[in-house]
Amino acid sequence: MTDTTTLLNDLTHLLGERGLVREPEAMARYTSDWAGDSLGMPLAVARPATTADVAEVAKRCYEQDIAMTPQGGHSGLVAGALPAASGQELVISLERLNSVRAIDPVNFTITVDAGCILENVKLAAAEHDCDFPLSLGAQGSCQIGGNIATNAGGLNVLRYGMMRELVLGLEVVLPDGRVWEGLDALHKDNRGYDLQQLFLGSEGTLGIVTGAVLKLSPRLTQNRTALLGLPSVQAVIDLYGLARRDCCDLLTAFELIPRRCIELAIEATPELRDPLESAYPWYVLMEVAATGPIDLSAMLEQLLEKGMEREWVLDGALASSDTQSAQLWQFRESMLEGQRRRGEHLRTDISVPISALPDFVTQASETVMAASPECEIIAYGHVGDGNLHFNILPPMAMADSEKKAHLHDLEERLFDVLDDFHGSISAEHGIGRTKQAPYLARLSPLERELVQGVKTLFDPKGLMNPGRILPAGD
Amino acid sequence: MTDTTTLLNDLTHLLGERGLVREPEAMARYTSDWAGDSLGMPLAVARPATTADVAEVAKRCYEQDIAMTPQGGHSGLVAGALPAASGQELVISLERLNSVRAIDPVNFTITVDAGCILENVKLAAAEHDCDFPLSLGAQGSCQIGGNIATNAGGLNVLRYGMMRELVLGLEVVLPDGRVWEGLDALHKDNRGYDLQQLFLGSEGTLGIVTGAVLKLSPRLTQNRTALLGLPSVQAVIDLYGLARRDCCDLLTAFELIPRRCIELAIEATPELRDPLESAYPWYVLMEVAATGPIDLSAMLEQLLEKGMEREWVLDGALASSDTQSAQLWQFRESMLEGQRRRGEHLRTDISVPISALPDFVTQASETVMAASPECEIIAYGHVGDGNLHFNILPPMAMADSEKKAHLHDLEERLFDVLDDFHGSISAEHGIGRTKQAPYLARLSPLERELVQGVKTLFDPKGLMNPGRILPAGD
Repeated sequence: MTDTTTLLNDLTHLLGERGLVREPEAMARYTSDWAGDSLGMPLAVARPATTADVAEVAKRCYEQDIAMTPQGGHSGLVAGALPAASGQELVISLERLNSVRAIDPVNFTITVDAGCILENVKLAAAEHDCDFPLSLGAQGSCQIGGNIATNAGGLNVLRYGMMRELVLGLEVVLPDGRVWEGLDALHKDNRGYDLQQLFLGSEGTLGIVTGAVLKLSPRLTQNRTALLGLPSVQAVIDLYGLARRDCCDLLTAFELIPRRCIELAIEATPELRDPLESAYPWYVLMEVAATGPIDLSAMLEQLLEKGMEREWVLDGALASSDTQSAQLWQFRESMLEGQRRRGEHLRTDISVPISALPDFVTQASETVMAASPECEIIAYGHVGDGNLHFNILPPMAMADSEKKAHLHDLEERLFDVLDDFHGSISAEHGIGRTKQAPYLARLSPLERELVQGVKTLFDPKGLMNPGRILPAGD
Repeated sequence: MTDTTTLLNDLTHLLGERGLVREPEAMARYTSDWAGDSLGMPLAVARPATTADVAEVAKRCYEQDIAMTPQGGHSGLVAGALPAASGQELVISLERLNSVRAIDPVNFTITVDAGCILENVKLAAAEHDCDFPLSLGAQGSCQIGGNIATNAGGLNVLRYGMMRELVLGLEVVLPDGRVWEGLDALHKDNRGYDLQQLFLGSEGTLGIVTGAVLKLSPRLTQNRTALLGLPSVQAVIDLYGLARRDCCDLLTAFELIPRRCIELAIEATPELRDPLESAYPWYVLMEVAATGPIDLSAMLEQLLEKGMEREWVLDGALASSDTQSAQLWQFRESMLEGQRRRGEHLRTDISVPISALPDFVTQASETVMAASPECEIIAYGHVGDGNLHFNILPPMAMADSEKKAHLHDLEERLFDVLDDFHGSISAEHGIGRTKQAPYLARLSPLERELVQGVKTLFDPKGLMNPGRILPAGD
């Protein structure tokens, strides 16, 4: 009986039969993510139901030099939570650690287990007339621990910030099984170095988040949505500046959508009609939301009037009901489906200063089209974050076998343009494994030394999610 | 000629005569802070005017094991930026590094040298119809670098967050003189560990911030102020929850003021009249501010109406002009002056969950009054942050020689109550030297190990602001 077998038997003893999954069929669902990627099977999947059990699992793995893969809701996009091809990693799934520990609507906080599904946290908050404002496509399956590990963004960053700005306290199991206790529900606290910030966005490489205190907002009681047609990205940016002022930062979304995406949406959902009478090169899908006595319709109408006077807005549809609003948002969802249907394509998640968006889109498009005249560019994103999903569909006629290498080449060219704009190759998805090569290529020796130093400080044996962000055994 | 003299001569050569201050009289103003504390004289005061010069000064100090004290505007409250009594530290003042490097109103960012005075940054932003929303009493003298090093808070945290939430990028000179370059103007960036977060609030112990990219907001175009009389802290908290909803998070301030502070304000500024017809145990000074077409008066009136119906608000004065608004704010300023005039007193800066404020104020007051029936408690603060300045004036009759020890004893009792509420002994002022003992006493061995590990990673020789946060040579 090998040491590993002994460990797994011990873990079964500790966690119970439900707590350790060893059969390949049952493990399958822990080996792939939303993007469909899969690398290999883990040693086993531990499913601890308490922080103490997570700590005990980590302690035993640490003692026996077993690598650990913390895992949430499998909705990551950079292969960060998939067990390695080696077959030597123990997946530690947080899915059974899924209770709301406490809610304090007067303090505007909720304390949750890391395995809570985002949607459930939002529902728990709503019961107390509050909202937890993080909003993601994957909110029905992603877990709070994963949102923390990846410093999740999503649709409402513009108004509420990234996950980092929504977390007040954390409880984290370190690689050696010790528990870092930082579950304070304090809105303000300046006691020394804020170690909590390091765990946020560390993609499970420094420890396993088991609990969190999250910041709530008052539940929004009204919103208005508009879909607008614009002549250029410059007009989109101009309108954005006006909207921040005239809508008093009550914007919850300000999405850039190119004409091609409207067409893809209609391809995917034929009952959708072209939303405006004519076609426009660019569209903005925007939403304002509020509590209290604010006339949002008047606010939006005034904005559109000014936008049209200045010829930034050429036409627009204002939703006057929740149903109409949902119809406008349908374009955003269907365009993703339309994109998916086109098969293999390059997905990116980049950011530049907002003011650089027009020039960046122009130069990046020129560079990509020069290298691949038959490809199709689909660049949409969150204007207020300077965050673009500058995606590329390969030429229709290209053989499937050639697509991967071709798209990789285009990605490198795109990132070169991005460097000229001092942009980020990963605005919200993180590094994981998928973005590691371009990340490392752009890291200065000093930055690499410090990043490695932080990793070593928390995880001296390099057992916690090795190979993500930094190479394994680095 | 000693090595130190050689170093200082070299630094004069490097920085010029204006760049190195060695005469005791000229150094005096670098040895005390706003609170009037002073520990001793430094070796000298370096006044580099460029990041390259800061780096070169640090490099030479590092090579020769000379401790460094980075220094901003001397408005810290925990003796963190004062040179040590040893006389062996080189003060590195950032005051000549005071240019606005760039402003990009479309990206809502400003890039500044660390020595820029906060007020000047706010003025530069205003020229572009933007605001840098950090607001402090010391804004006319404090520097951005100090605001970053201390993760400054102030009056508008409720709406805009601490300094941490207002910083997008940093440039930092490490103790050995290498420059960490992170001056990106990106609103969203998830590339690996966010090292920048460590510098924020590290009180100059990990490196010297030399530049920053700050996040701007649209300039507010209207505001309304109200001063309200309330029966209890519970009513204040109840009103706060209602105000967050009915004022749609447009609150820029929601200050708790006890009756005693109104009296102290009138003592200090006799032309002030009691603001309401009767006296009330507690007051709230609140402000809402907006851009765009929002009727703030109607919003505030509706809030007060509801508050009065529920008997949370007993009376109130609404400012209908900027002059009237300034008069209401005069109470907040004069009460601080009234407090100062009472001589030696205990100043604290603590936080608890907002929901715990009523019980905490009751229990802490009972504990303090039981130990010192003749003392006076002045507990005011920022409700939305759960942040109280729970200050204590010693008994009038007490001999000056006894006050310090007596107040220290009361502080310990107060902090014991605070521990029961899982509060923070330093909500916004930081640790520095003044708060080090109670900070260390509450640090778990694991936390201490990690904090020390971070310090050692960035400053292996322990030369950067030693003795602040952690003990020197630890």
